[in-house]
Amino acid sequence: MRATTIHAPGDIRLSDVPDPTIEAPTDAVVRVVAGCICGSDLWPYRGANPITAGSTIGHEAVGVVEEIGSEVSRIKKGDFVVIPFVHCDNTCPHCLAGMTSVCDHQGWTESGQAELVRVNQADGSLVATDGMPDDALLPSLLTLADVMATGWHAAVSSRVRPGGTAVVIGDGAVGLCGVIAAKELGAERIVAMSRHEPRQALARDFGATHVIAERDDAGVEAVMELTGGIGADSVLECVGTDQAMATAIGIARPGGAIGRVGVPHYETIPASLPAFFKNVTVGGGPAPVRAYIADLLPDVLEGRIEPGRVFDRTVGLDGVPDGYRAMNDRESIKVLVDPS
Amino acid sequence: MRATTIHAPGDIRLSDVPDPTIEAPTDAVVRVVAGCICGSDLWPYRGANPITAGSTIGHEAVGVVEEIGSEVSRIKKGDFVVIPFVHCDNTCPHCLAGMTSVCDHQGWTESGQAELVRVNQADGSLVATDGMPDDALLPSLLTLADVMATGWHAAVSSRVRPGGTAVVIGDGAVGLCGVIAAKELGAERIVAMSRHEPRQALARDFGATHVIAERDDAGVEAVMELTGGIGADSVLECVGTDQAMATAIGIARPGGAIGRVGVPHYETIPASLPAFFKNVTVGGGPAPVRAYIADLLPDVLEGRIEPGRVFDRTVGLDGVPDGYRAMNDRESIKVLVDPS
Repeated sequence: MRATTIHAPGDIRLSDVPDPTIEAPTDAVVRVVAGCICGSDLWPYRGANPITAGSTIGHEAVGVVEEIGSEVSRIKKGDFVVIPFVHCDNTCPHCLAGMTSVCDHQGWTESGQAELVRVNQADGSLVATDGMPDDALLPSLLTLADVMATGWHAAVSSRVRPGGTAVVIGDGAVGLCGVIAAKELGAERIVAMSRHEPRQALARDFGATHVIAERDDAGVEAVMELTGGIGADSVLECVGTDQAMATAIGIARPGGAIGRVGVPHYETIPASLPAFFKNVTVGGGPAPVRAYIADLLPDVLEGRIEPGRVFDRTVGLDGVPDGYRAMNDRESIKVLVDPS
Repeated sequence: MRATTIHAPGDIRLSDVPDPTIEAPTDAVVRVVAGCICGSDLWPYRGANPITAGSTIGHEAVGVVEEIGSEVSRIKKGDFVVIPFVHCDNTCPHCLAGMTSVCDHQGWTESGQAELVRVNQADGSLVATDGMPDDALLPSLLTLADVMATGWHAAVSSRVRPGGTAVVIGDGAVGLCGVIAAKELGAERIVAMSRHEPRQALARDFGATHVIAERDDAGVEAVMELTGGIGADSVLECVGTDQAMATAIGIARPGGAIGRVGVPHYETIPASLPAFFKNVTVGGGPAPVRAYIADLLPDVLEGRIEPGRVFDRTVGLDGVPDGYRAMNDRESIKVLVDPS
């Protein structure tokens, strides 16, 4: 099949690789209808993560089931499915507790920017729609594989509540989905920290009541001024750097909560003592996507939320390398990949 | 007045110091009926915290109001009061949000091991009982100034829920009070990590269903074995060292929560990445004692909980230096000070 592969920092290629096959009786193979490039794909692209040269890349996809293993019964060939980026059996103690991203049979989507993808634990992982969805819904359905669910997790982990103040750090697709989530969960004041005009505009469309362009100390000061010196009830940390976490701890109100969903590129949580003395809670991690889809799928199908608006560019598989460049240069918020 | 003072690591003395006076119209001066030595007093005693030579020490006390400032109206001379170790106005936005330990008019009990103590924001801080309580209740009432409320905060911050598994790290008075709190909040399985027989016995009396004597890696292994490889829903971190926090992260189940209440003697939270990938939440800080007393005072007055059992020794003011030694040598769990 044709698939996106990574070879070194900055070196993304369209390659021919062997088709994924059924390796375990619980597997399925899905033909990708839409995939995309994730902010977290930019970490290896920038050389910040180790790379296995020649490996496929991409972990977000929706598609049509092409083949199923002998033990797959709930999911059928021909189903249109959302593929949570972390695969799960949905029956282990962690899944039953809602922590599907830490399943005992955890697997990962490994070729989301390609024609085909293998899904482990297909019965547990996949969520099928009733029939083929309208093309217009594809982008929003695709966000349920990761970014919308991850933004939701940031909001849940930061305990967004009706009437509260939520600040979203990070104006990538996850941060923008975090704005949607904060609005859905009833936050009264939603602050998007963004210095990029098109993203600011989209954040406002999604429900941000305020935009703060300043960063670091100046950003902390601006949030404190906006909140009358009190700070934010909820901070959605959608970046994953120590600067972002330090800002989050700086702006959280005493007793407030931070939901972190950007994969941490820091060894230890900074500002532990200020967090302690302010009684600030730090939660979050890889989103339990599978567990959230039940809530989010109807919102998308019935048009209450439109997270697919984070996509501002569509490419074919041969356009993926330039899509990485465009996202890395912040020319594009998020690039949809149509492998057909 | 006669007061306990600290002069250098290991150097605790009984001294004559000026009586505390009304400095602000919102102050009160309270005659101490019972004070005590706290685990956190041992940090400067051991040289782990900076010391101002000759300063008074002790932050836990109950007593009778001796004098009030001109703006104090709710509290009267002669009231028997519990003094939360952090003073608060109980009206600022943080207090109204339940975060009385981060009050805009925060103050601290500074001479709890003495004859008299000044309380800032007396109307906001102090909780008076109806008349003088029985002597038998004094020890338990005294724990409401800090350790019982702090153990409660560890349990709340680690989200102890009916039917869950709670592990308490630390077998000092706070940890033992954490066991009481976990039981009150309905935990089904309560594990006390303790290697000290008298503390193990008290933990069991307070509601611990299991005791684990192992520490560090062996302790993590023992908890994982006990929980069938799943880990604990709630971890009450009542120590404040990086080893204790690393153990807490090691034993928390995916999606579980850690409530930390020991003042951190680490700069940054260790094991941030494992915590992230397990979706473990870290919360806690100085307990909002004043906010919890409303719930805890009836429990003590009506005998439902007996946290005063953590006191296993009583001394007069001249016995305080030896009390520090006894607690530091783990000869005593907690020493009550009767300054009369």
